[in-house]
Amino acid sequence: MSNEQAIGFMDSGVGGLTVVREAMRQLPNERVVYIGDTARNPYGPRPQEQVKQFTWDMTNFLLAQNVKMIVIACNTATAAALEEIKDKLKIPVIGVILPGSRAAIKATKNQRIGVIGTQGTIKSAAYAKAIHQKAAHVTVSSLACPEFVSLVESNEYRSAVAKKVVADDLSYFADKNIDTLVMGCTHYPLLRPLIQNFVGDQVTLIDSGAETVTQVSMLLDYFEIANENNQVAPQHAFYTTGNPKMFNEIAGDWLQLGDLDTQHVDF
Amino acid sequence: MSNEQAIGFMDSGVGGLTVVREAMRQLPNERVVYIGDTARNPYGPRPQEQVKQFTWDMTNFLLAQNVKMIVIACNTATAAALEEIKDKLKIPVIGVILPGSRAAIKATKNQRIGVIGTQGTIKSAAYAKAIHQKAAHVTVSSLACPEFVSLVESNEYRSAVAKKVVADDLSYFADKNIDTLVMGCTHYPLLRPLIQNFVGDQVTLIDSGAETVTQVSMLLDYFEIANENNQVAPQHAFYTTGNPKMFNEIAGDWLQLGDLDTQHVDF
Repeated sequence: MSNEQAIGFMDSGVGGLTVVREAMRQLPNERVVYIGDTARNPYGPRPQEQVKQFTWDMTNFLLAQNVKMIVIACNTATAAALEEIKDKLKIPVIGVILPGSRAAIKATKNQRIGVIGTQGTIKSAAYAKAIHQKAAHVTVSSLACPEFVSLVESNEYRSAVAKKVVADDLSYFADKNIDTLVMGCTHYPLLRPLIQNFVGDQVTLIDSGAETVTQVSMLLDYFEIANENNQVAPQHAFYTTGNPKMFNEIAGDWLQLGDLDTQHVDF
Repeated sequence: MSNEQAIGFMDSGVGGLTVVREAMRQLPNERVVYIGDTARNPYGPRPQEQVKQFTWDMTNFLLAQNVKMIVIACNTATAAALEEIKDKLKIPVIGVILPGSRAAIKATKNQRIGVIGTQGTIKSAAYAKAIHQKAAHVTVSSLACPEFVSLVESNEYRSAVAKKVVADDLSYFADKNIDTLVMGCTHYPLLRPLIQNFVGDQVTLIDSGAETVTQVSMLLDYFEIANENNQVAPQHAFYTTGNPKMFNEIAGDWLQLGDLDTQHVDF
């Protein structure tokens, strides 16, 4: 194990890039290898067993890239597969649900938290369970927003349609009196301006992915595997099971890295 | 190892209570055992070797209380002893410097971070080193504020004298253009209103202790030792090597727990 090995990130598509952007900001010495399973996106409506299998496919791909840590940068995959994968691998593996839950508990003042995510994530009740295990007195209101992922994957996340879908879905929270809303899907931070605009400034938005990176940083330090070499700019690598062109467009725009030269891979 | 065992917190005096308050808020199921070495406070001006020995005294006291994790809730002690203690113990041990450093890197937008702490902490350059190992491009300005701890330990932290001392010391940052200031001593959050008032709202204050608790939460989950039993209110225990009366006063006021029944212990 060398501290210069990459950290592996995986997602059902481009959503995990919101986590990678934060990783590049908070951990500029760390090399990123990313796999987005765009060809089989979205994961949200799929049965848990299938999501688990797909998550193993991505895990095995990242292990073959010789990563030192794996981040399941996808809430649906975290809910379905984190526990099993963490137990089976020797390298640290972390998901996005517990970091998002902790951040929400830290942020709420009125003890009323909202959670939005895919059908898979919301059906698993993974956020509500995680929040209640730590803080039983908190009220959690959860809502599946199945159309959000498609808006992002189709690069429609700034459109008037997106604005309407966000408003229609989030009106569910109008009478819930939440002061904190967990974006429990790594695609959702791309919709953040629309979401914040609709719920208002008095609601704190929790970006589970950004929180996860702080905790990645902690594990790197705890296990003494952080890369302290800042003399060489890390060479990141991006892979998708889908069409690299659309992936490159969204990623280039979101990460502001110019052309990423994303590679296509098949499982 | 049982998940219902307590988490041990230690500090040179009452400062670590700022971490405990956050622990009680974020981790309401967890039992706290606290030791404050008030009789030998302050640690800041002491040689590192002596601070290390005192930190071992507190560690051994906490181990005898059968804790499942140790939080060195004191920056001076973290800088002097964390590495050695973490290496020697089988239970997880965490300090406050890395969590504070990570939070500062996450918060800064202009890449200029200020750090205040005791002489021991600032002389060790532990924050500057930790920040630079992760993010070499950040400018760090550090200042020892030796009088701050005494203001807190003597329960003078709301006085006009405190206001003047804070203003005199922090004027050092007037031309540093920082947008983030790390309170690199767990006593300092008690002075937070005075500090925030002096530096202005445009500067984000980082409470290393509060950040540490989020990371304690993470380690509890990672090692699967969080207490998920929320049916029984945890019975906390507080110990001081000094006079329990003053400790009780500050702690009762700060933690709003009423009479803590702090016990005196000698090393």
